[in-house]
Amino acid sequence: MKARVYVMLKNGVLDPQGAAVQHALGALGFDGVSGVRQGKVIELDITATDSAAAKAQVEEMCEKLLANTVIENYSVEIV
Amino acid sequence: MKARVYVMLKNGVLDPQGAAVQHALGALGFDGVSGVRQGKVIELDITATDSAAAKAQVEEMCEKLLANTVIENYSVEIV
Repeated sequence: MKARVYVMLKNGVLDPQGAAVQHALGALGFDGVSGVRQGKVIELDITATDSAAAKAQVEEMCEKLLANTVIENYSVEIV
Repeated sequence: MKARVYVMLKNGVLDPQGAAVQHALGALGFDGVSGVRQGKVIELDITATDSAAAKAQVEEMCEKLLANTVIENYSVEIV
């Protein structure tokens, strides 16, 4: 079973990577980009066969390792 | 309009970040994780109002800046 985790900085947390991308897009001539936020996506191959159990396990992984919940939000998708 | 870009390393390209996450998950006692790949997600706020035009513009951004198409795949989603 495959799980996909999205980790994004919370709103209001400064995102220098996103700001750098936005600046670079402007320098390349792309107009009309009013905001950029950059986050992580983590794809996990897990052996669990029950999708509810898999989701619970991946959420625990997020709390313990994959996301810094002080400044980041995460969402889990089982695919 | 919001666009979301997913950038992942191509299959076969070594992913040390993913390997490090997999190792750390094992060390934390999470069994049953047989593979981890880590990529980027980039959220763009764009002023274009036509979704087809927006998608074409974001794909051009991917080719020129957001993804290294030699080693990375990208996908664009207009939300």
